[in-house]
Amino acid sequence: METLESVKTRVYKFGNKTADGNSKMKNLLGGKGANLAEMSLIGIPVPPGFTITTEVCTEYNLLGKDAVVKMILPEVEESIENIEKIMGAQFGDKENPLLVSVRSGARVSMPGMMDTVLNLGLNDEVVIGLAKRTNNERFAWDSYRRFIQMYGDVVLGMKPESKDDIDPFEEIMEALKHKRNIKLDTEFTIQDLKDLVYDFKEAVKKRTGHDFPTNPWDQLWGAVVAVFNSWNGDRAVYYRKMSGYPSDWGTAVNVQAMVYGNMGDNSGTGVCFTRDAGTGEDVFNGEYLINAQGEDVVAGTRTPQQITKLGSLRWAELAKVEEEDRFKNYPSLEELMPNIYLELNGYQQKLEDHYKDMQDMEFTMQDGKLWILQTRNGKRTGAAMVKIAIDMLKQGMIDEKQALLRIEPNKLDELLHPVFDPKSLKKAHVIAQGLPASPGAATGQLVFFADEANKYKYTILTRIETSPEDLEGMNIARGILTARGGMTSHAAVVARGMGKCCISGAGALKINYKTRTLTVDGKEYHEGDWISLNGSTGNIIEGKVSTIEPELSGEFAEIMKLSDKYATMKVRTNADTPKDAKAARNFGAQGIGLTRTEHMFFEVDRIKAMREMILADTVKGRKYALDQLLPMQREDFEGIFEAMQGLPVTVRLLDPPLHEFVPHQLTQQKELAEEMHISLEAVKSKISELEEFNPMLGHRGCRLGNTYPEITEMQARAIIEAALNLKAKGIVAIPEIMVPLIGTVEEFEMQENIIRNTAQKVFEEYNDTIEFLVGTMIEIPRAALTADLIAKKAEFFSFGTNDLTQMAFGYSRDDASKFLPIYIEKGILKVDPFEVLDQEGVGQLVKMGTEKGRSTKPNLKVGICGEHGGEPSSVEFCYNVGMNYVSCSPFRVPIARIASAQAAIKKSM
Amino acid sequence: METLESVKTRVYKFGNKTADGNSKMKNLLGGKGANLAEMSLIGIPVPPGFTITTEVCTEYNLLGKDAVVKMILPEVEESIENIEKIMGAQFGDKENPLLVSVRSGARVSMPGMMDTVLNLGLNDEVVIGLAKRTNNERFAWDSYRRFIQMYGDVVLGMKPESKDDIDPFEEIMEALKHKRNIKLDTEFTIQDLKDLVYDFKEAVKKRTGHDFPTNPWDQLWGAVVAVFNSWNGDRAVYYRKMSGYPSDWGTAVNVQAMVYGNMGDNSGTGVCFTRDAGTGEDVFNGEYLINAQGEDVVAGTRTPQQITKLGSLRWAELAKVEEEDRFKNYPSLEELMPNIYLELNGYQQKLEDHYKDMQDMEFTMQDGKLWILQTRNGKRTGAAMVKIAIDMLKQGMIDEKQALLRIEPNKLDELLHPVFDPKSLKKAHVIAQGLPASPGAATGQLVFFADEANKYKYTILTRIETSPEDLEGMNIARGILTARGGMTSHAAVVARGMGKCCISGAGALKINYKTRTLTVDGKEYHEGDWISLNGSTGNIIEGKVSTIEPELSGEFAEIMKLSDKYATMKVRTNADTPKDAKAARNFGAQGIGLTRTEHMFFEVDRIKAMREMILADTVKGRKYALDQLLPMQREDFEGIFEAMQGLPVTVRLLDPPLHEFVPHQLTQQKELAEEMHISLEAVKSKISELEEFNPMLGHRGCRLGNTYPEITEMQARAIIEAALNLKAKGIVAIPEIMVPLIGTVEEFEMQENIIRNTAQKVFEEYNDTIEFLVGTMIEIPRAALTADLIAKKAEFFSFGTNDLTQMAFGYSRDDASKFLPIYIEKGILKVDPFEVLDQEGVGQLVKMGTEKGRSTKPNLKVGICGEHGGEPSSVEFCYNVGMNYVSCSPFRVPIARIASAQAAIKKSM
Repeated sequence: METLESVKTRVYKFGNKTADGNSKMKNLLGGKGANLAEMSLIGIPVPPGFTITTEVCTEYNLLGKDAVVKMILPEVEESIENIEKIMGAQFGDKENPLLVSVRSGARVSMPGMMDTVLNLGLNDEVVIGLAKRTNNERFAWDSYRRFIQMYGDVVLGMKPESKDDIDPFEEIMEALKHKRNIKLDTEFTIQDLKDLVYDFKEAVKKRTGHDFPTNPWDQLWGAVVAVFNSWNGDRAVYYRKMSGYPSDWGTAVNVQAMVYGNMGDNSGTGVCFTRDAGTGEDVFNGEYLINAQGEDVVAGTRTPQQITKLGSLRWAELAKVEEEDRFKNYPSLEELMPNIYLELNGYQQKLEDHYKDMQDMEFTMQDGKLWILQTRNGKRTGAAMVKIAIDMLKQGMIDEKQALLRIEPNKLDELLHPVFDPKSLKKAHVIAQGLPASPGAATGQLVFFADEANKYKYTILTRIETSPEDLEGMNIARGILTARGGMTSHAAVVARGMGKCCISGAGALKINYKTRTLTVDGKEYHEGDWISLNGSTGNIIEGKVSTIEPELSGEFAEIMKLSDKYATMKVRTNADTPKDAKAARNFGAQGIGLTRTEHMFFEVDRIKAMREMILADTVKGRKYALDQLLPMQREDFEGIFEAMQGLPVTVRLLDPPLHEFVPHQLTQQKELAEEMHISLEAVKSKISELEEFNPMLGHRGCRLGNTYPEITEMQARAIIEAALNLKAKGIVAIPEIMVPLIGTVEEFEMQENIIRNTAQKVFEEYNDTIEFLVGTMIEIPRAALTADLIAKKAEFFSFGTNDLTQMAFGYSRDDASKFLPIYIEKGILKVDPFEVLDQEGVGQLVKMGTEKGRSTKPNLKVGICGEHGGEPSSVEFCYNVGMNYVSCSPFRVPIARIASAQAAIKKSM
Repeated sequence: METLESVKTRVYKFGNKTADGNSKMKNLLGGKGANLAEMSLIGIPVPPGFTITTEVCTEYNLLGKDAVVKMILPEVEESIENIEKIMGAQFGDKENPLLVSVRSGARVSMPGMMDTVLNLGLNDEVVIGLAKRTNNERFAWDSYRRFIQMYGDVVLGMKPESKDDIDPFEEIMEALKHKRNIKLDTEFTIQDLKDLVYDFKEAVKKRTGHDFPTNPWDQLWGAVVAVFNSWNGDRAVYYRKMSGYPSDWGTAVNVQAMVYGNMGDNSGTGVCFTRDAGTGEDVFNGEYLINAQGEDVVAGTRTPQQITKLGSLRWAELAKVEEEDRFKNYPSLEELMPNIYLELNGYQQKLEDHYKDMQDMEFTMQDGKLWILQTRNGKRTGAAMVKIAIDMLKQGMIDEKQALLRIEPNKLDELLHPVFDPKSLKKAHVIAQGLPASPGAATGQLVFFADEANKYKYTILTRIETSPEDLEGMNIARGILTARGGMTSHAAVVARGMGKCCISGAGALKINYKTRTLTVDGKEYHEGDWISLNGSTGNIIEGKVSTIEPELSGEFAEIMKLSDKYATMKVRTNADTPKDAKAARNFGAQGIGLTRTEHMFFEVDRIKAMREMILADTVKGRKYALDQLLPMQREDFEGIFEAMQGLPVTVRLLDPPLHEFVPHQLTQQKELAEEMHISLEAVKSKISELEEFNPMLGHRGCRLGNTYPEITEMQARAIIEAALNLKAKGIVAIPEIMVPLIGTVEEFEMQENIIRNTAQKVFEEYNDTIEFLVGTMIEIPRAALTADLIAKKAEFFSFGTNDLTQMAFGYSRDDASKFLPIYIEKGILKVDPFEVLDQEGVGQLVKMGTEKGRSTKPNLKVGICGEHGGEPSSVEFCYNVGMNYVSCSPFRVPIARIASAQAAIKKSM
């Protein structure tokens, strides 16, 4: 050992409004230790204690227990003395015992590290002193029982011996319950607790071969070493590997005085918030209980009281409690202990000022002395998040960039869609889980057929799958539920466009159209039964759950406006109808990044012409049918261009396999045969010809336009004519024509030629021109790999990360539900790559595609129109790759705008 | 113009056994011009002529016609004079006219460049002289008619005016035929031909506004300029773009004296080969006709005579012609014109010696003077190719590397599979085309059910699709034909493994099992009708075509042995049975690169246990069924390991989706339900649960092993136990366990853990160990992108380029038949990427995967096991990427061995 080593500080004290460390020393003291030091330093009365540094952990791994204990013993002894002095109690003292907690604390919070050991310092003698001092024998013995259990588990390795075994201490308790014929822990008598302590210690001796340590110092060193060992435990190693943290960081150990809120009527415990976590209102609030432990506040067996008088009065009004009753039985802390309240109020102001964010604090009063146990940035609703950010900006606490960074973009979803009333949700019984296909909450009565969607006032349309014929019913229903299909199924895509709540692919549902029943786990639900859907989580809930309609606040407008000041990457929307386009424009969309033209064909009068086109055997026959579709498509485009006037509109040419457009029910096939004057056999034969083994990888996208050029011609004509018609009315349309599913530059060239030739013809016919671009989706891996060649021709790229993810992973999104959930559960995947762009793999293709594209066309316009375009971490990735815009469904436009601004701010920092 | 420009040589003469240029001047003289110069230079009597250089073409594009004509006029005049001197005839002379041909000739052969103009120099007066000199008025006027037609088309732009029109000259000829009520060109009288010439010239005048040029010099300049213009014609530009040739190469113009074999009994024409193109035998051979033009030899209206006496005698024997008759009516050139024969024989030896390869020559005798019109490397059969290479090596003409490079690897296929007898094939009527799923030729009687495959001696099993139940019937049938399914369908994969001829996905076939008929294009074929399949081309032929069984020659063995001397990259095989493994080993396979374990489950007794496993609802139930499968799998592996003893065997764990194993027919579903003592409903429900939208991207590969770890456990156990059992018998097994469909390193780690833990258990049970590797397929794009991470764990990579191609292109191989043929026809794709590895796109992933993999594991063993492993250009790519081995089906092993050797040789050059 070097001498220098032995003189450096290895133990950092805190408490009594002073500390050796501070919040900047996270690497040395761990996150928890640094924060405790910081709080103490700024004058917050935290229970005193000390932190053994992360460096000691590393030394322990090198040198072992004895050397390390020898090295830090003097400092630890000094630190314990310091705690004793502040708390006025002695470690191991039988009369006035000091008990401590021992916790691990790495640089970052690491779930799976060592659990906490509480009440350390107890033994057969000290427990008696504790009982006397608290005047609560039951509490003392229960604490002792818990201490042995925790210490045994965490420090002495008293775990179940195999996966099939139960916890050894639980086993003893179960046996005693059985013997005493009781069910709950609270039914144990004091004598039972004493017996348990005895039996626990016996079990420890039997299993480990050693007595349970009675000397508090032995207990302390045991716990400290256990924390160090936990750094190399299986769970911590796994977590580090998953997160990419190096193993030489080590963990710190925090030892802190125990304080008790259950030492009588001068004691208590509570939780408080510096602002309202539900609304964001700038009022101090919280709850407390006299003579109680933290878990009593949470347990709900006693009614917690409010911290402030204002809060108490509000509570009484809601709870319909008379003022007299309130003041007598549920007084606020402000009224009951005005001095403590004043002190607490000072601390909350100080902490919020210090951390510049709404704080969620835990406190305990022990014998009239206030201790702050913990403070952290408070969780809040979406509405509160927005209000607090804007309020703090106005109050000068944070600047604009900070205000923007305070927004968790995904939480804005709550503000845009109906949500379940949290009160109503408490009793919710989730009967199954599907894919969260389209966010929001919906409650309604079950119907099984689209044409019965108006049978009740509020309906949930429940189908095995939906098809184009169901469109109108889907529009009427409050929510849509399907047993099959993925996140890109017909139901899911249409619902997202409508901004309507939808859960798809809920495989546990057995739907019987004949009996009009839905069976889940053996329980049957009938038509007319109430059901509720949470489209944001995929939860399917039995019965009626009331919903809250969204209402956008002024603060929401302010934060969105602020985002435009910092965002350099634009946000467009995916919209297939003028209605969607208008909605998105209201949300601030700066153009359309994806209009799927095929959805236009699904409407009843159009699907007929489309089917005739598909069934035609000759180019002439196809052209005849396409001529019927032309005016309808043109009208669609006119509507969309008008809604987006002055902004670019990316129109994707026909994409899905033709099989999706043909009727699959016999009656409809018969109708079609009659209409077309051909035999039913011919219709069936054509439909069966269109069937594919893997339609996702089949005859679709530009493969259609290149094998049936007349389709592309019709679509190009409709687009150009629409723009020219609007131009005549003084409306500016900026079409960007997008070719889907390009894998080779030759495919693009062929489509581009058709489009440009058609446009030229239309220009001549109209004797007028408009500006337009021709570009392509990059959604096939090969397109990303050969983007340099494709960019020589294409005027813009739009990454279709849905298909790109499907092909890069080899996952069919519609089928992945069979293994994706298991993969996520087993940790093979961290997140669903269809929700969050896989930057490690798929991201390489996006980056490569962008870079290669710009290598041959430096000013290439690049965007994204997959679902990821509205997912914040993916938006940030797109910004860093250098994209010009992201495009997402209308209701995610605000989320993407914030994410775009945040990405720019983060990069500038 | 610089002075230097005007003095450089722009026109290169050749003829009279001398030449200004030589074969090295291809860039300047074009390929054809350089070769004509070379032949003349080495003393071959080519019809004299000259070449205008490619540089002049470039000058023409800059300066235009007048400047260029002025610049080259003196050289061209001198060159024409040179021809006149050699030929003893005058250009434009009425008595003794010299006629010439004009041809384009770029550096490389470019289909789509200008057509040839023959007989240039004719006009109304010259034609009379020609008639006199040839004593053949009909020939003279027909030549004149043809000249105007060719010149009009090529030089004067007399093309059809629109796509629907016919050729303007053909129109005139059709009108005359109609008027004269005749059908064939040969029925025209001399007067008709004269009338045609008149009408043709009128048509030219009417369409172009100018008289047809009568001055031979005007004709010549017109043709020269037309050649230059053709360089920038649509077809040439398109071809250049496709092939990546620069536009500044330009084309040369070749002007050459016309010679005629139809000037009397002292004239003639013929084709000859320096060796036998069918067998490779080193004998001079060929055919000729007296008083004939080249087209007469080809036309088949007269019986061509043999060049050599030996050939003539052999011919007479086959044709059953008596010697007297032969000698009188069909004498050989050797007998008829011994001097000319001797001269020709000298030239053929000289040309073969010069070009060091078998030559295919065209010659003409005009008035007793021999002219060699052309020589080129002769096309040959696979057998001849091998024999000639080995013979020339032994004769010291070429060295070992050259001999190997002479092998066109794909042609070896002919030697390994039955082929159609070319004579029998001449009358073949191709009724439809399918995918060439497994090479070879087969002829047999139609059967529609696998269990009737032995109904006739030779059968062709014809099915809509095949399924595992058909296995035995497939083994019995001579060939397999399916209407659906792609190159990786069940039929295709099984047939390739068996080395049996198969055509799949022949969509034009309508199969009716009830009536036992096959309908194509309205024509019906019944059970028992004869049909023939060419599995190498996909041609389906009506009736019986006799086949020739392969017989491997000594030269074949010699060339294969030679390949091993130069090949550094190894060749393994894809084999699923001991039989296949043995076959491949006989073909020189150096291990197994892919054993698909799932095929083992398709056999009747196993499929039952497999289905029970799939239908089990619990881990316990699955394990029970897997326990039944274990001994069978172990036995399979023992057989394969034994066949490959001492060589590595890569075993791929279960890959296909479980749906492929369940019965799809009601009767079988009922049976299964009874066997398992569950309801038919339960069986059906489970089967429908397994259905997927895109099974290719579904629950398969390691996704099975990671969701049902017990499957991997069973397979790992079977592999390790098999190897240990053999070890006990003194047989060395080298298993390389391969995890399929890895997309993330986490998936691999989980599988690797199961495999290693299982192996450890088995080692303990056997108290013995063996060496084995655990590696992975790289077949998911994401795996290639993250290969650096995967290689940290995997001990080897094997590129599965089938799936990699499917996912990189987004093509389902089973469905691509709907657009791939159209794509290839339209030039969007040059070749089918499932046959030839797409180096531009998919190749990037292979290269990236290899490089990234070796960046973290420098000695990573890398191979390929997709179908491309047996395709020569792909094998070369794999070599250049640095792979350790390629693996292919047994019958392609020899091909891959040659390709591997060639790749190494090419790189070393």
